[in-house]
Amino acid sequence: MLVNGEPGKLISIRDRGLLYGDGVFRTLRATRGKAQHWPLHYQKIQSDCKVLGIDCPDFALLTAELDGLLAAHPDGVLKLIVTRGEGARGYAPPSGAAATHLWDVSPLPDYPAGWATDGIKVHLCELRLSQQPRLAGIKHLNRLENVLAAAEWNDASIAEGILLDIPGNVIAGTRSNLFMVRDGELLTPDLSRCGVAGVQRARVMECAATHNAPCRVAQFGLEQLLAADEVFLVNSVFGLWPVRELQQRSWNRHPISRQIQEWLSHASD
Amino acid sequence: MLVNGEPGKLISIRDRGLLYGDGVFRTLRATRGKAQHWPLHYQKIQSDCKVLGIDCPDFALLTAELDGLLAAHPDGVLKLIVTRGEGARGYAPPSGAAATHLWDVSPLPDYPAGWATDGIKVHLCELRLSQQPRLAGIKHLNRLENVLAAAEWNDASIAEGILLDIPGNVIAGTRSNLFMVRDGELLTPDLSRCGVAGVQRARVMECAATHNAPCRVAQFGLEQLLAADEVFLVNSVFGLWPVRELQQRSWNRHPISRQIQEWLSHASD
Repeated sequence: MLVNGEPGKLISIRDRGLLYGDGVFRTLRATRGKAQHWPLHYQKIQSDCKVLGIDCPDFALLTAELDGLLAAHPDGVLKLIVTRGEGARGYAPPSGAAATHLWDVSPLPDYPAGWATDGIKVHLCELRLSQQPRLAGIKHLNRLENVLAAAEWNDASIAEGILLDIPGNVIAGTRSNLFMVRDGELLTPDLSRCGVAGVQRARVMECAATHNAPCRVAQFGLEQLLAADEVFLVNSVFGLWPVRELQQRSWNRHPISRQIQEWLSHASD
Repeated sequence: MLVNGEPGKLISIRDRGLLYGDGVFRTLRATRGKAQHWPLHYQKIQSDCKVLGIDCPDFALLTAELDGLLAAHPDGVLKLIVTRGEGARGYAPPSGAAATHLWDVSPLPDYPAGWATDGIKVHLCELRLSQQPRLAGIKHLNRLENVLAAAEWNDASIAEGILLDIPGNVIAGTRSNLFMVRDGELLTPDLSRCGVAGVQRARVMECAATHNAPCRVAQFGLEQLLAADEVFLVNSVFGLWPVRELQQRSWNRHPISRQIQEWLSHASD
């Protein structure tokens, strides 16, 4: 673990990341000493920082820190957090605050291998996401909605929860982005009012475009999701999981999901 | 500063308060060695913890810690944070997590005395609050909306910002609750979909009821606010500030606001 470049696992109780969730983060997968898609993750955290007016550390600095961590932890999950740092009491962002940045490493989760091949069972969350266009798409530290949603099930056979927003649009998984296939077309929810636009979502869209199967960003509800030919979830840690079961609906074949898995595994950074 | 009862100013980077804003807080005013309305603040943080399923430390423990702090800092602003504590990676709340609780102390802010008597100038925030009934009313650590709102002005003569929600209902100040007076009736916004229901708001409602001037919780928009006979803001640090100026509208007399200030100053805990 590194805090502002130094080994450590503590931060100030006056850090605005704690006080207000005033910061952003990334979760990366390290495999054989390489952090997968690190340049894309950096672009995303830099862009998220910019929206919030946080001074993101530069690429070279973070890359050097990351390289040091990878040497010690060639395989695992890396988490990078950038907060606005400390400041005087009060919500207003202090001018010229020095951002705090920190890294944490944890072991790779031990998911059943079948989840990537045969698909997963998912829970439909009762919690509905609120709409806040000013924060939509950003992976910020205000994640209580995700916490409440993830608390809804306690059954190890359920791999993820599906989130709708308050008006009923399908948005995402609690920790993943969602895609569906309908009549051969790939669709993913519009995230302009809520949700997190993850790196793996961008990679799927890029891969699909490269293979002349462009993905369309759309608004759709639960009924349309249940009528889809395939549904799959993606994130940077587990990659791509086809959905096998949601409520009374089951999907037994996932040909396009598996094709996209294959494309992703061969795509470069 | 105290962290879990021990002098200290650091917490773990794995604390869910930092990772997800998974916690709640209170801000109290200490005056001559007494924390104002501490029992009400405790009730509120206990109730907020309960909604989130966080195990709130008990009253006797927190009161003992508070007494120690007050002996050293008889006047100032006290902040109490309770988070869900540390846990395994992932949004799902770990079962049996030991909550983290911490206290911080800062000096009393140096507000112009005229703000409480002659009223304040306020900014109408462009940021609109999202609606999330599951979190409405709770003073949780997901406060990025307040941060973005408070970043909108940089004029020391503006004391607060007024927040509407996305549909246009008046909700609150960025760090205060709002009341308006219309034809002798006291009104305060419905906070069932967003906003924080603060202790000072509850005290105003209680005082008004005691004096046979009951406050009505209502939905109203900007137009109705601008048409009000009086508007005032309250919180536990500054008490009550009448609003003197909002956009083109100015209010020069604040008889009911001043009456309520008077009632508050004589009300017990």
